Amino acid sequence: MAVAISPARAIPFSTVRFISFCTKPSPKSVQSKLVPLLTNHHHPVFPPKLHFRHVPPRLPAAAPPFDRRCFCAATAEAVERPRAGEEVGDFRSRLRVVDIKGGPDEGLDLLGQTLGVKGWVRTVRVQSSVTFIEVNDGSCLSNMQCVMTSDAEGYDQVESGMITTGASVSVRGILITSQGSKQKVELKVEKLVMVGKSDPSFPIQKKRVSREFLRTKAHLRPRTNTFGAVARVRNALAYATHKFFQDNGFIWISSPIITASDCEGAGEQFCVTTLIPSSREAVDSPANAIPKTEDGLIDWSQDFFGKPAFLTVSGQLNAETYATALSDVTYFSDSCPHFNIIVRKFCTNYVYTFGPTFRAENSQTSRHLAEFWMIEPELAFADLNDDMACATAYLQYVVKHILDNCKEDMDFFNTWIEKGIINRLSDVVEKKFMQLTYTDAIELLLRANKKFEFPVKWGCDLQSEHERYITEVAFSGSPVILRDYPKA
Amino acid sequence: MAVAISPARAIPFSTVRFISFCTKPSPKSVQSKLVPLLTNHHHPVFPPKLHFRHVPPRLPAAAPPFDRRCFCAATAEAVERPRAGEEVGDFRSRLRVVDIKGGPDEGLDLLGQTLGVKGWVRTVRVQSSVTFIEVNDGSCLSNMQCVMTSDAEGYDQVESGMITTGASVSVRGILITSQGSKQKVELKVEKLVMVGKSDPSFPIQKKRVSREFLRTKAHLRPRTNTFGAVARVRNALAYATHKFFQDNGFIWISSPIITASDCEGAGEQFCVTTLIPSSREAVDSPANAIPKTEDGLIDWSQDFFGKPAFLTVSGQLNAETYATALSDVTYFSDSCPHFNIIVRKFCTNYVYTFGPTFRAENSQTSRHLAEFWMIEPELAFADLNDDMACATAYLQYVVKHILDNCKEDMDFFNTWIEKGIINRLSDVVEKKFMQLTYTDAIELLLRANKKFEFPVKWGCDLQSEHERYITEVAFSGSPVILRDYPKA
Repeated sequence: MAVAISPARAIPFSTVRFISFCTKPSPKSVQSKLVPLLTNHHHPVFPPKLHFRHVPPRLPAAAPPFDRRCFCAATAEAVERPRAGEEVGDFRSRLRVVDIKGGPDEGLDLLGQTLGVKGWVRTVRVQSSVTFIEVNDGSCLSNMQCVMTSDAEGYDQVESGMITTGASVSVRGILITSQGSKQKVELKVEKLVMVGKSDPSFPIQKKRVSREFLRTKAHLRPRTNTFGAVARVRNALAYATHKFFQDNGFIWISSPIITASDCEGAGEQFCVTTLIPSSREAVDSPANAIPKTEDGLIDWSQDFFGKPAFLTVSGQLNAETYATALSDVTYFSDSCPHFNIIVRKFCTNYVYTFGPTFRAENSQTSRHLAEFWMIEPELAFADLNDDMACATAYLQYVVKHILDNCKEDMDFFNTWIEKGIINRLSDVVEKKFMQLTYTDAIELLLRANKKFEFPVKWGCDLQSEHERYITEVAFSGSPVILRDYPKA
Repeated sequence: MAVAISPARAIPFSTVRFISFCTKPSPKSVQSKLVPLLTNHHHPVFPPKLHFRHVPPRLPAAAPPFDRRCFCAATAEAVERPRAGEEVGDFRSRLRVVDIKGGPDEGLDLLGQTLGVKGWVRTVRVQSSVTFIEVNDGSCLSNMQCVMTSDAEGYDQVESGMITTGASVSVRGILITSQGSKQKVELKVEKLVMVGKSDPSFPIQKKRVSREFLRTKAHLRPRTNTFGAVARVRNALAYATHKFFQDNGFIWISSPIITASDCEGAGEQFCVTTLIPSSREAVDSPANAIPKTEDGLIDWSQDFFGKPAFLTVSGQLNAETYATALSDVTYFSDSCPHFNIIVRKFCTNYVYTFGPTFRAENSQTSRHLAEFWMIEPELAFADLNDDMACATAYLQYVVKHILDNCKEDMDFFNTWIEKGIINRLSDVVEKKFMQLTYTDAIELLLRANKKFEFPVKWGCDLQSEHERYITEVAFSGSPVILRDYPKA
């Protein structure tokens, strides 16, 4: 990762500081100063770099050393320096591939326009008369197919073999109808600028690679289709989560992450401490350097908070104090295939938390994570029916949101990751959610005309086969909520 | 806090479980099963509670024990149990005080309607012929003034003195024009139900209390005007933050909280470990119970992750790996009066993080926090000008958002917490942001017609007096960005 950002270090002064938020003017004294000075000092403009006496020499932008591999490092470009005391410019979003190809016309509405695209090269196909460069900018799954002939500016970079998979490029061209069947439009390149080159050993080539391999290239895997799609869908789910609760009058609460509360023992906790030296020295820490009391106990008075502190296992208690004062809160886990919702009825208003949560349970299953983001809604003046209705409305809202807004990514998952996922999620959106008690579910299973591998009796944990029977057979595909579970 | 939720424990079965997300149907086999069974098993309806053999007896709702003080605990009400296999109902937001009084007419448009309000009693004024009960539900700063005469249902609770500050009530009545000058409408009570009573020792009475005192009542302070307003404004700022970045095509990244990276030494780190026993036993942990190697070093192989792990000091490195693949990221701290923005120029797209961040620096100032939520945007193919433009647009957007949407709360701050804050924030929204280099700022200060307490020279840290001169005098109230700071 350090490689990718090394050029940034070449710019010696890179800290920007806002200074208008710390002033606390005493209105009277300021007023008397402001009046006489206003006309003299109104937006003075200085010639740039008036005062160089103490300025350390600016370092030249460092070229990446030869013994380092270079994956798309920015090439040195002089930063444009505005004059002193200039106004800050307007913020404009850059044109993205999704802005071009994401519309209903898939880009046909922009035919003939000169457009610029910046991104990373996925593939380069050099043919006799024309070169195809697929550029992806992460704004969507689709690449922008760039078609380049030898008369285009910057073609020498193609000829010299510098434009390879992983390289960062800026391309300008005219949008034309594509001859290929995969896309409706492509960019006829007028100018190609290589922003950062890529080493031939760049590990994410066109060939499909395993997720185990990608785990060893964590800094580059966001450039794969799978991780890009996951990031976009996860982003959409998170934003839809906020949108749902905000639109329904919930207040978001950022409950503390470091806490002394174990929230009624919701899970094993991680200890947070400074009694052990920080990262660089931690590996070789002598165990007897940890402060002890005379009795040989850990001396917590010397820890950061003066007593033991832990990572939160739930924001529930904090959310409840706000729920009994404000308006409606939330909580359930996005880490579990089973969405477990703990319902509490008490007099409150509506608030929700949505933040990281931690469990120090060493269980290597997909249903247990050491760190996950949890949604915890707390509803005011509500009962179990309100809670089920809220959870149902929430799930239908966020699932509909990704089906509507992440079509391309969901199609990708449906084809390559989990066949049938779109149909299953469409059921969640379109079918009515059903609800029954655990006891009634057991009764339903006992009366089922089906032999189960795991025998059913009251008090047993439901297995996949039982859950599938209930949802798929008994309720023909409707999502089902089981309530009134026996106490664990 | 436990007191407030104790009634919830009286409901023995409170776990709801969604079971439709774990099924992974093999489409063929399911299809063949579904067809013959569909008609027989389509939405079977069982008589409720068919099967009670193994059901443990339902506990009666426990009354709060006499030796406990009761702050608005929910009184026992039977939960309505729908029939087995029923559809989940629609989720409807409850009518809130802000829905009644928050509109442009301040409630006059709803005159004559019968409305229900649920919330907590702020004050009760019993007069000879009429009783005024101020009910706040946290949806806004304003209370709903409820006017009650002796003929209203539930008046006996007023007579017996049960309706006191802090009590949770449900009120139904007709909205009428208010005689008072403080509000345009009030609720003429038809029925009052006490949902949870409050002890006379309830610490948040009408009298103003210090924040130091409230710190000792952390579970009740959300019911004060100040903490309620802070929670609502903080919520609005957080949501506006997501909205700004999402609307500008940024992708939110949840960077890891537990990490082995110290992000270029951005700050002192907290160690996260399970080598020390969890909360309940931690206080009396023998120091020599921590696993050691033969050399007397801490045996990290026995820790949760098999090596030292820490709380993140910045999501920057993670965001960068996504920024060099997706579309535009973010970061700056919401904890500092100075918004420090670290700008990096490297080839990327746009992503942002917004999550908790930690520094184990034991500095007791308002500018240093052990735990805070940080926004980290990473911009693709951008330079310093783009970054300043983005930060400026962001600040103007979120500040405008709270001025527009939290008017009542901001008026409260302007009157009681910090006079002039609305004018100052309006400047942020309306004035053009200026930017100049640190070097030019020093030059400007050296040429200033003003004697500073702290002398100015290149390389010095700017003091409040310098920053005030630059923003208030030199740039007449415009927010100013200083760039190209010397390396720390």
